[in-house]
Amino acid sequence: MRKQRRIRDYDVEVGQLQPGRLNSITDVEGVTVGHVTLSNEGMQTGVTAIIPHQGNLFKEKLIASSHVINGFGKTMGTIQVEELGTIETPIILTNTFNTSTASLALTEYMMAENPEIGRTTGTINPVIGECNDMYLNDIRAQFVEKHHVLTALDSATSEFEEGAAGAGAGMLCYSLKGGVGTASRKIELEHGTYTIGVLVLANFGMLSDLTINGRTLGMELREALLRLPEEKDKGSVMIIVATDLPVSERQLNRMIKRTVTGLSRTGSNISNGSGDIVIGFSTATKIPHEKPNHCLSIPTIHEEDIDLPFRAVGEATEEAILNALITARHTVGRDGHMRPTLSDLLVKHDIQL
Amino acid sequence: MRKQRRIRDYDVEVGQLQPGRLNSITDVEGVTVGHVTLSNEGMQTGVTAIIPHQGNLFKEKLIASSHVINGFGKTMGTIQVEELGTIETPIILTNTFNTSTASLALTEYMMAENPEIGRTTGTINPVIGECNDMYLNDIRAQFVEKHHVLTALDSATSEFEEGAAGAGAGMLCYSLKGGVGTASRKIELEHGTYTIGVLVLANFGMLSDLTINGRTLGMELREALLRLPEEKDKGSVMIIVATDLPVSERQLNRMIKRTVTGLSRTGSNISNGSGDIVIGFSTATKIPHEKPNHCLSIPTIHEEDIDLPFRAVGEATEEAILNALITARHTVGRDGHMRPTLSDLLVKHDIQL
Amino acid sequence: MRKQRRIRDYDVEVGQLQPGRLNSITDVEGVTVGHVTLSNEGMQTGVTAIIPHQGNLFKEKLIASSHVINGFGKTMGTIQVEELGTIETPIILTNTFNTSTASLALTEYMMAENPEIGRTTGTINPVIGECNDMYLNDIRAQFVEKHHVLTALDSATSEFEEGAAGAGAGMLCYSLKGGVGTASRKIELEHGTYTIGVLVLANFGMLSDLTINGRTLGMELREALLRLPEEKDKGSVMIIVATDLPVSERQLNRMIKRTVTGLSRTGSNISNGSGDIVIGFSTATKIPHEKPNHCLSIPTIHEEDIDLPFRAVGEATEEAILNALITARHTVGRDGHMRPTLSDLLVKHDIQL
Amino acid sequence: MRKQRRIRDYDVEVGQLQPGRLNSITDVEGVTVGHVTLSNEGMQTGVTAIIPHQGNLFKEKLIASSHVINGFGKTMGTIQVEELGTIETPIILTNTFNTSTASLALTEYMMAENPEIGRTTGTINPVIGECNDMYLNDIRAQFVEKHHVLTALDSATSEFEEGAAGAGAGMLCYSLKGGVGTASRKIELEHGTYTIGVLVLANFGMLSDLTINGRTLGMELREALLRLPEEKDKGSVMIIVATDLPVSERQLNRMIKRTVTGLSRTGSNISNGSGDIVIGFSTATKIPHEKPNHCLSIPTIHEEDIDLPFRAVGEATEEAILNALITARHTVGRDGHMRPTLSDLLVKHDIQL
Repeated sequence: MRKQRRIRDYDVEVGQLQPGRLNSITDVEGVTVGHVTLSNEGMQTGVTAIIPHQGNLFKEKLIASSHVINGFGKTMGTIQVEELGTIETPIILTNTFNTSTASLALTEYMMAENPEIGRTTGTINPVIGECNDMYLNDIRAQFVEKHHVLTALDSATSEFEEGAAGAGAGMLCYSLKGGVGTASRKIELEHGTYTIGVLVLANFGMLSDLTINGRTLGMELREALLRLPEEKDKGSVMIIVATDLPVSERQLNRMIKRTVTGLSRTGSNISNGSGDIVIGFSTATKIPHEKPNHCLSIPTIHEEDIDLPFRAVGEATEEAILNALITARHTVGRDGHMRPTLSDLLVKHDIQL
Repeated sequence: MRKQRRIRDYDVEVGQLQPGRLNSITDVEGVTVGHVTLSNEGMQTGVTAIIPHQGNLFKEKLIASSHVINGFGKTMGTIQVEELGTIETPIILTNTFNTSTASLALTEYMMAENPEIGRTTGTINPVIGECNDMYLNDIRAQFVEKHHVLTALDSATSEFEEGAAGAGAGMLCYSLKGGVGTASRKIELEHGTYTIGVLVLANFGMLSDLTINGRTLGMELREALLRLPEEKDKGSVMIIVATDLPVSERQLNRMIKRTVTGLSRTGSNISNGSGDIVIGFSTATKIPHEKPNHCLSIPTIHEEDIDLPFRAVGEATEEAILNALITARHTVGRDGHMRPTLSDLLVKHDIQL
Repeated sequence: MRKQRRIRDYDVEVGQLQPGRLNSITDVEGVTVGHVTLSNEGMQTGVTAIIPHQGNLFKEKLIASSHVINGFGKTMGTIQVEELGTIETPIILTNTFNTSTASLALTEYMMAENPEIGRTTGTINPVIGECNDMYLNDIRAQFVEKHHVLTALDSATSEFEEGAAGAGAGMLCYSLKGGVGTASRKIELEHGTYTIGVLVLANFGMLSDLTINGRTLGMELREALLRLPEEKDKGSVMIIVATDLPVSERQLNRMIKRTVTGLSRTGSNISNGSGDIVIGFSTATKIPHEKPNHCLSIPTIHEEDIDLPFRAVGEATEEAILNALITARHTVGRDGHMRPTLSDLLVKHDIQL
Repeated sequence: MRKQRRIRDYDVEVGQLQPGRLNSITDVEGVTVGHVTLSNEGMQTGVTAIIPHQGNLFKEKLIASSHVINGFGKTMGTIQVEELGTIETPIILTNTFNTSTASLALTEYMMAENPEIGRTTGTINPVIGECNDMYLNDIRAQFVEKHHVLTALDSATSEFEEGAAGAGAGMLCYSLKGGVGTASRKIELEHGTYTIGVLVLANFGMLSDLTINGRTLGMELREALLRLPEEKDKGSVMIIVATDLPVSERQLNRMIKRTVTGLSRTGSNISNGSGDIVIGFSTATKIPHEKPNHCLSIPTIHEEDIDLPFRAVGEATEEAILNALITARHTVGRDGHMRPTLSDLLVKHDIQL
């Protein structure tokens, strides 16, 4: 696996900052990602699990924040993330009609690890994101089962497939095949070197809007492609931001809002039907579930340090979306529906990026 | 059923406005409520379904709004309600660990009624609220099944049980048995008579704080009750507000925020562990799913008309909580856990309200 | 000055927690308050300055938060407080049409202390709150001048007048004379003893709703007072919350939201025309204006410690409002307008609180 | 005046939609704009007034909304705009330290037109936006006086200068001279043709980020310009969106959030020190100040009509920023500070857009 040709392999370098070693959300120490892909004719869907750290997340929560770019979506768990400023479970991404199954599985997973949940301590707050893959996938069939979610969790590693994998199996992006993409950036501050990683589940946009590093490729390609009817932009994008930067939940929220700069630069107009939702977490501080008998001490950057993180978030988001597009493989789904891939189009129309 | 003795039957009259005919959320024309109660030893839980109107909600949505008083909760569906200002499904209330089952059932229910969902039109946004009933109920067992939710939906009527019924079966409130309560208010404006109804799932508070119509009964009772150990306030309250008043989603949001006045007057300090979440809808306007070829015309009150609705929301919320308490019946649950009921306490300590 | 008879002097004890030494916002170490009162016939207005700490606030900012209970108001500075989570100036309260004069004066005050503002560093964010005193005061005349604001700042001390003083000179509350009130609470946590202080500028409500510690006095008094025509509730309340508790801006925001429990218990329905706005700050951490070359370390309580602070905020808010009412002195203002005081009414109608 | 060479005169066509007749915010029927420019050595500042309709705005309010992209700013009036969903005054733009003077002047202007304000009806809510022009302007001197604001209001017309005019006199953008810019888009829906206009006060960004219609010109120019030290990005942008589209305040809020797509495409990373704030209004419905004895009827588009308005907002914002840059004239200000203009740079480096 993972010798996929990514957007940098086409000599497209987004922005000014350097990526991490894998150019992936897993460059943030402790973060792992697992997929289960369900791909067979009308079943084109799956699960992607993002594990924020390798300990017991319920007992050692992370500072977290969410942001709704556009709220036509069914993401679960953000009310509590916003109130408490922490995340206490892995994040599961799947299709719109399987969020509840994912939530049930994630609840079981957390209960198994923490027998006191629902007995001597309270409940948990599963965080689930989704996009609608109904064009390629028979979404009404709700193919994802609990064991798929548990398998995705159990198989999480630092290297994972991009494109039509996991929750990305059935997604479309800019009228092309979409899916999962990732990227990262390193930043140097006076007090250390930090990593910001982004993972997207990209399922939005119309081809005519596609822009690659400033080049309005969509307009070029569309003219070449009169056979492809322009459809309505109804999709969504889930964006997960991970960092090891010490930040408060307010600072993290400011950071994750900057995903919209990268999203916009790929051409999105953030359409009505889109659930464009961001969830971020920082691994820098672990917040204990049990109250200690002293105050916590939260390390945070000074606000004047935040411009570089802002830039990093925008760049990594833009590149993650492009990676989702360029790595996606040809998929024929429900009722024979299919969409071209970006890489096929480049070949077919002899376009150099 | 429903010859329960309610708080007005104890000569407690909350506020200055008159209730509707049933003093219930179902006084709002078209609103019905259904319960499934699961009560047997360690199983003390259930489902309550609120149906906003009797037509096809997906095709004729209602203006809606949500408000988070305190976000330690797992309510589903509010992101989209806030973005679009509409509700397109019934509202299901249940325990914290069965929200996903409720969501799956509600999705099926909506898909059955609307075969185009996930095929030629988009998905749907299930709205599910919850409280944690783990003290009386074995919440880890997740007793609620999909058919229970469908039964609650199918059995919805204008008259329904209060107290330990439906989702209220296992709830506690002010250290006493809690559950479902309802109340309503009529308001007269220059252009018509309107109804505002509130339904609560009350599962919060400590006895020492209980206040009934200004009387700090909790302090009186607590002194009489040294056997009852004061526990931490970890509960939640779901509040559903229905009205036939023509309002915009912004106006409705302002209205539902006033639930906090009634909640506060029963003694709540809106504790950390509480998921105090409000969902409101107006039946005055139906928003079509399909785009017409003309503009919509939304009737709304002038802002100067809104003080009376504000008052009505506060009064109905306060009375609905008191109704939940006073109608709750004695329940022995998980591991023999039980809590006194308010009515038993009044008798035992010879207290006249 | 300051031998005013306060609500505790009438044996009204609000809530369960103990007040601080002065039962005042100034019980929070470092907080001082200054008034300038302009009272002469149709001029019934003034300025109240709250100084959060005695150092250079621009160079050593405090963690802060704001909350809009109802937004029919013109408070200045909250956009930046929310974005950055800090306050960098004193807080000035005055009448609605003099907020800009107050802002100009506060800007001058800060520029004088910090010559680098607008030269080698950026600008400042003045925080100004207001209520509308047009019934007793000729508000169109805009009586407050910059020197009044500077005098209020310069005269700030730990003991200050309540009632019809400073910005409270022309305010009404529950159809009676209103104004400035304050109260505080001490809380004991495992790691220390902390103080929470509240100052209100109370200018809201109708007499029929007035509730004193659960007693619906307004209904009693109203029946005795048929001469007093019930007017519309158009007023506002500014609420300032100070604490020395170590909290993040998110935690502080949660705390200041609980002011609404105390406000509700005095009888408010949070009417349409009310600008009910809360600003809070914690003195526990000073955030440097200049970026250090290391991370900050922010001490915060664990979330499980927050219920007692929640309770303290509600209690102190309720008592501060009652103090504003009971200390207010008889005032005849614009066009001979006047309102009874609560203390006069108690005497006249021979009511024991 | 106004034969300024705009970005379209350089054959740069942003986006896919057509502009209105003037390609200006004033293409929205009834909207006018007036400037007062104060330009003399260290005084480089001014006032820009946007008048939303030509009637009495206090008596006939417009549906309005605000959005904070980044809140390091001192905009006044948004709390009430958000609560009530209306705007009742013109919008004044000026420098950071003259917002209060602008507010005082606007209050006088509104009081003169409406003698009942502060007497028989309530107060008003002035809406003032600002950016920090301290590099070119001696901002501590607070040059703007009330009469300047009144003159800007009185001189508002449908044709107005862009670039270093009015509030734009001292602004910088992408390290170049910035200021005021405008653009508009026409959209065709089934039920009519509508206009969306944007006016920006552009005062943000670093040259290295400047992107013109996808071309990263900043990188090209920066390499040519080693004499120009890259400074920190500390600026802001105010964005005013006007439309005649019938929308609710919620829909309008969704629309104005899309300004960020255009902003991002010019290269902005929305830096920490930036007050990036959007205010929008629709002229389609007039909301009466006085309560009628019937309900209002608010025409609104169906949500499915909103993608084209979203696109229009993004395109017009992007083009308005480019117009601000390309029309800005060379300015020498405080202490001889100056910044190149975009048009000078193009000539000097022989760059064709």
